[in-house]
Amino acid sequence: MKKLINDPQTVVAESVAGFGLAHADVVAVHADPLFVSRAGGAVPGKVGLVSGGGSGHEPLHAGFVGKGMLDAAVPGPVFTSPTPDQIGPAIAAADSGAGVLAIVKNYTGDVLNFETAAELADADGHRVRTVVVADDVAVEDSLYTAGRRGVAGTVAVEKIAGAAAERGDGLEQVTEVAERVIANVRSMGVALTACTVPHAGVPSFDLPDDEIEVGIGIHGEPGRRRVPMARADEITEMLLDPVADDLGLAPGDKVLLLVNGMGGTPASELYVVYGRARRLLEERGVEVARSLVGNYVTSLEMQGASVTVLRLDEELTELWDAPVHTTALRW
Amino acid sequence: MKKLINDPQTVVAESVAGFGLAHADVVAVHADPLFVSRAGGAVPGKVGLVSGGGSGHEPLHAGFVGKGMLDAAVPGPVFTSPTPDQIGPAIAAADSGAGVLAIVKNYTGDVLNFETAAELADADGHRVRTVVVADDVAVEDSLYTAGRRGVAGTVAVEKIAGAAAERGDGLEQVTEVAERVIANVRSMGVALTACTVPHAGVPSFDLPDDEIEVGIGIHGEPGRRRVPMARADEITEMLLDPVADDLGLAPGDKVLLLVNGMGGTPASELYVVYGRARRLLEERGVEVARSLVGNYVTSLEMQGASVTVLRLDEELTELWDAPVHTTALRW
Repeated sequence: MKKLINDPQTVVAESVAGFGLAHADVVAVHADPLFVSRAGGAVPGKVGLVSGGGSGHEPLHAGFVGKGMLDAAVPGPVFTSPTPDQIGPAIAAADSGAGVLAIVKNYTGDVLNFETAAELADADGHRVRTVVVADDVAVEDSLYTAGRRGVAGTVAVEKIAGAAAERGDGLEQVTEVAERVIANVRSMGVALTACTVPHAGVPSFDLPDDEIEVGIGIHGEPGRRRVPMARADEITEMLLDPVADDLGLAPGDKVLLLVNGMGGTPASELYVVYGRARRLLEERGVEVARSLVGNYVTSLEMQGASVTVLRLDEELTELWDAPVHTTALRW
Repeated sequence: MKKLINDPQTVVAESVAGFGLAHADVVAVHADPLFVSRAGGAVPGKVGLVSGGGSGHEPLHAGFVGKGMLDAAVPGPVFTSPTPDQIGPAIAAADSGAGVLAIVKNYTGDVLNFETAAELADADGHRVRTVVVADDVAVEDSLYTAGRRGVAGTVAVEKIAGAAAERGDGLEQVTEVAERVIANVRSMGVALTACTVPHAGVPSFDLPDDEIEVGIGIHGEPGRRRVPMARADEITEMLLDPVADDLGLAPGDKVLLLVNGMGGTPASELYVVYGRARRLLEERGVEVARSLVGNYVTSLEMQGASVTVLRLDEELTELWDAPVHTTALRW
C-alpha cells in the first residue's frame, strides 16, 4: 500500500488538522471529539446545517463548511460513520437558536448515528430535522444500505439547502427545500479501479484489467454489473441513461449536470464524460443550465466517475447560484 | 490501459471542448488551432497573459484562464508542447494593445515554440515579453530540459502576474513582478506511482511496489533518487528541506505554501503532507502566511505530490490575495 500517510490509525485526525491549519479563515477544527465548524461559529438567527459520514470522500463534507453551505461537518473513520458523540457537539455548535437541519447520506450506520445524536440533541433543547439523501439509482439495496445509497447528489442538497438557510428561511422551509432537491436528483457511478482503505491495506475488491464496475458505490460496494472496459462515450451512456430515465426527464426540462471524479481520475477525463453526458441530455431535449465538474464526492484514490443530474426549477437555480464560500466550492 | 477516453488521438480536443461547454461563462474554446481564451475577450488597456504547454497537467493552464489570471492558454498534445501555430493566435487574442506576457515552463520544446511564436507575433505588431519558470530544485538538467524544470510554482507566477496586469501595471512592470515570483519560488515532487500517456498505452516508467521516486518531473522524468516507501512525514522532509535550503529561507520569512497533488492522490493525503511541511517551516522560524492545497499541476493519474514554497513580500502577498475568477482558482 502506497499512501502519503503516517499511520492508518491517525490519518483522519492528521488530515483534518492539516485542513484546519490551511483554511483557518474558513473553518475551525475541533479535535476531541473530531468535527469541523465555520470559523466564525454559528450565525445568529440562521438555521444551522450539519452533515457528516465516513472519511475518504473528501472534499465531502468538511470541504463544504462555510458561508452559504454547511455550518458543521463530522468526519468518521475512513468509510465508517461518525459516532453520536461526535455528531452531538457538531449540532450544538451549528445551532444559533433557529434549529438545525442534518443532511445524511443513506447508509445504515450514518442514519442510525445521526438519529441517535438528533434525539440526544433534542433532549438538550436543540430543534433538529433530518433529511436522508438517496440519489444512487444503481441498486435498490446494497452492502451497507437499505434502500438507495446517498452519493454525489449530496453536494447539491448541501449547496441549495445552505443557500436557503443563508437567505433566512426557517427550519421547516430549509427542510422542504432539501427534500425538493432530494426528490429531483439522481446519480450513478463507475469504477475503473478499486481503492485501498488505509487500515485494510489491500484493495477493497478485485477488478480485472479489462473490466469496469458499473453502478459502483462510494465505498467500493458492488454495483449493477461488471462489463468489459469500453470507450468513454459508451460508459457515459451506461451512467446517464438510467439517471435520466429514473428521473423521468422530459423535453424542456432544465438540469444541473455534475460529473464527479472518484479521486484518482484526471480532470481531463471528467470533461470528456461531461461532453458526452451533455450531448445525451440535449438529445432528450433537456437543457443543461448549470454544470459542475471535478472531485467532490470521492472514494480515496479510486479511478472512476459518477454522473449526477438535478432537475432545476427557478428557485433551485437561484439557490444554486447564490454565493458560496467554502474550501471546495466558491463563487 | 483504463481511461475515460474515446481515442488517444482526439482526447485533448474532446476534453477541452467539454471544458468550454461546462464553463462558457469563464472561457471560450477555439478549436482550430486549439486554444482557450477569456469568455469576454481581451480586456482593453490590460496587459495580456498567455501560457501553455503539454496537456495532462490539468487544471494547468486552461483552468487558470479568467479574470485576475490568464487571458489565454494553449494546450498541446499530452506531455508535448503546443506549436507556434497555436500559440500565435492565442497571443493575438490576448493582446488588447498593451502587450502580452508569455509565461513558459522550462522545457526545451515549450521554450523553443513560444520563442518562435513570440518572434512571429512581434513581426505582426504584438509586443511580447517572455518569462521562463524553472522552480524544480530536484535536478539541474533532465530528460526534456536544459536547466531546472518548471513545475507547480507556475501557478504562483500566473496568479500574481495576473493580478498585476489586472490592476493596470504596464508590460515591463508585469514582467518584473513575474520575474520576482520566479526568483522566489521553489518546488520538489515525489511519485508513488507512474502515469500512462494515452497514446503510449503503458506506464511511462516502472516503479516497484515498495519504492518511490523523489524529485520526479511532471512528465514522469527521473528525479533525484529512488528510495523505499516511507511515512508521509519522512517523504515531506525529503521534499521540503531541499526547497527551503535552495530558497535560503531565514527566520522571519513569510511564505506561501502550496501542496500540489499529482492527479491520483486523495485530498486527505495532501493535507497530511501540508501539516508536516508547515511544521517544518515553522521549526525554521518561517511563517506560512498563505496556503494552497489541491490538484493544480498534475501528471495525469499519477499518485504523488509536490511541495512549493514562495517567499512573499508585501506586494506579492497583496497580489496573491487579489480577486481571481477562473475555473480552478477563485476568490
